[in-house]
Amino acid sequence: MIVLLTDFGWSDPYVGQIKGALLSRVPECRVIDLTHDVPPYGLTQASFFLDASFSFFSEGTIFLSVVDPGVGGGRRIIALEALGHLFLAPDNGLLSLILERGQGTGMRAFSFRNPIELNICPTFHGRDLFAPLAAQLLSGDSPESLAYEIDPGDLVRHDWCAPVESEGSLHAHVLHTDRFGNVISNMRIQVWSERMDAPLHVRTHTARLPLQRASTYCEIEPGQLGLIAGSQGFFELAMNMGSAADMLSLRPGDGFSLHFSDA
Amino acid sequence: MIVLLTDFGWSDPYVGQIKGALLSRVPECRVIDLTHDVPPYGLTQASFFLDASFSFFSEGTIFLSVVDPGVGGGRRIIALEALGHLFLAPDNGLLSLILERGQGTGMRAFSFRNPIELNICPTFHGRDLFAPLAAQLLSGDSPESLAYEIDPGDLVRHDWCAPVESEGSLHAHVLHTDRFGNVISNMRIQVWSERMDAPLHVRTHTARLPLQRASTYCEIEPGQLGLIAGSQGFFELAMNMGSAADMLSLRPGDGFSLHFSDA
Amino acid sequence: MIVLLTDFGWSDPYVGQIKGALLSRVPECRVIDLTHDVPPYGLTQASFFLDASFSFFSEGTIFLSVVDPGVGGGRRIIALEALGHLFLAPDNGLLSLILERGQGTGMRAFSFRNPIELNICPTFHGRDLFAPLAAQLLSGDSPESLAYEIDPGDLVRHDWCAPVESEGSLHAHVLHTDRFGNVISNMRIQVWSERMDAPLHVRTHTARLPLQRASTYCEIEPGQLGLIAGSQGFFELAMNMGSAADMLSLRPGDGFSLHFSDA
Repeated sequence: MIVLLTDFGWSDPYVGQIKGALLSRVPECRVIDLTHDVPPYGLTQASFFLDASFSFFSEGTIFLSVVDPGVGGGRRIIALEALGHLFLAPDNGLLSLILERGQGTGMRAFSFRNPIELNICPTFHGRDLFAPLAAQLLSGDSPESLAYEIDPGDLVRHDWCAPVESEGSLHAHVLHTDRFGNVISNMRIQVWSERMDAPLHVRTHTARLPLQRASTYCEIEPGQLGLIAGSQGFFELAMNMGSAADMLSLRPGDGFSLHFSDA
Repeated sequence: MIVLLTDFGWSDPYVGQIKGALLSRVPECRVIDLTHDVPPYGLTQASFFLDASFSFFSEGTIFLSVVDPGVGGGRRIIALEALGHLFLAPDNGLLSLILERGQGTGMRAFSFRNPIELNICPTFHGRDLFAPLAAQLLSGDSPESLAYEIDPGDLVRHDWCAPVESEGSLHAHVLHTDRFGNVISNMRIQVWSERMDAPLHVRTHTARLPLQRASTYCEIEPGQLGLIAGSQGFFELAMNMGSAADMLSLRPGDGFSLHFSDA
Repeated sequence: MIVLLTDFGWSDPYVGQIKGALLSRVPECRVIDLTHDVPPYGLTQASFFLDASFSFFSEGTIFLSVVDPGVGGGRRIIALEALGHLFLAPDNGLLSLILERGQGTGMRAFSFRNPIELNICPTFHGRDLFAPLAAQLLSGDSPESLAYEIDPGDLVRHDWCAPVESEGSLHAHVLHTDRFGNVISNMRIQVWSERMDAPLHVRTHTARLPLQRASTYCEIEPGQLGLIAGSQGFFELAMNMGSAADMLSLRPGDGFSLHFSDA
């Protein structure tokens, strides 16, 4: 089984061509789309989508993630064995959250040799390089046989993986705003859960608003902002059938802070 | 085989996570997307999509439909055996048209026991509750073994299932406007077919326009509005390579009326 | 294996119904989406998507392409055996680029008999006619047994398949602008590759700009326009993490010209 995650969108034939490249090599493989609507060059969101989703797939699933503004340039192509799965991606920070979460769990990383084949288009490695590599891995080849091992600590990792705490507040980062307007932060539930019980405010560049602690969207008072331990493993700012992202003018990559008292 | 219908969109990882939850439990199952672009909270459209589509799938298909603004609240999770298939959904009116169509055909309804498991996120029952239930049904468990039987007449059912007739006119409801601008009404072809032969006008809040009876889009005169016995089982207002929805400013949920004479 | 290409979009239930029609007849068939987001009635783009993609699929794949503004009218339904695959489509120019590319390779064309079945909706041949025909072909029926052979030279073919050369310039056509803003022309790389080395300008109705020859997007200077031998088999106008389509105000169907000197 292979799971695909790209910023190629659903409108162009690019994803279909990747599937053709996979299925013509491994006809029996199962291909699942995580999504292809990562915003163009949206490494933060791709990283978050992987982190939030891998655990719902069977152990040993291959995740092929292609958000790759540097395609054809000097960036490495890597595979990361982590958390029971294999993650194939460009080495540009796309695996940041997986690397952060997998720390201390015995991850292994591999860098693929530069290809010298003629049939590889330098602007579409997803189809001509990643897909054939994935097909070899799906066919049972080990990463060791295709790539040389490197130190996972050497992989590119961005600094938006976790919030920064200071006196009475938490400076967080927006990983994603979803279709329903939920603002998904980089505050992992399992890390920050205990901290979230005090009375809360959220502060952005333009607003300062109280937050209602809630378990479900329909519990949040109409027109109010809620703070929810969301389904994606992180705390979310949310409204009841309304868009918290619009209310707060927050977009992926923006910062905001949570304040635990009225100070 | 399982068919998925949600308002989760194609951009977030939610649908991928549901597929992971299904395939990690029932690896050999076949998963088909009906669509995931039901507008957020769009119960009318979801109900229509099911009604228009179920008959094209093999008997015994499981339809998992999640449009669920009340997720985590008090609404029931139900299964409906109807029309040769099994429909799994929240009890919020999503099955309205299926209930209307299945009347008198010996439907059976089931309500699932409230879960007490710890791993169920109260904001994403689609992944943590519906998908595992669907996996059990796909594996051969009967609804009886997982839920208690209830009266199908007790399920939530909305009142936009059928038009209302009055002297010389029919007051109808827009179930959906599609990508091509076709306005799909709640007038079932098999019910209203004979009535539609007289000269017709359509009246909305802002317009009153003649309708041309047509069998195909390309038969409709350029710039004119047509009335077509559409492919989805309902009468449609349509134009030839133009948008009837824009011309009439009609959106899902809006009302309009058809008048059968010039009166 | 069958590959689907339509302008039905991802929001309506139309594609799901086609899949139901296929899978209820040939349960074991493999269905791949090339894309369904061809713009409504976008024959040029559909033709380009097929041309750019077919070679990545295993020999003998059936490509079912439905962009069909004349549905239910007089246009023929055809199958084209070409380039090792079978292309099923309406005879409206959708196969233009395949016909151009396949010239001299021994293509065979077939026209299907007009159906007289009652269950065929005249506004949705994709589901009620193309899908059942595709199912018969998938089940092993030959085109000969279902249709009569015709001359491939008689099929509708549009004139945007190739650029026109004149003194010192090449008058080209935009086949597609993709999600990243790349402008894909009708200049095939293998035909025009040698011609593209001289200093170049692009001229549109509103602009005249120099072009930088580049192999990858990240090689293009920031803010500059590049000319790339793209991944889809045609030359592309491109920017580095920017939209060439917006910069040049070019859309599919527009013309532009390349000039090889400063004249």
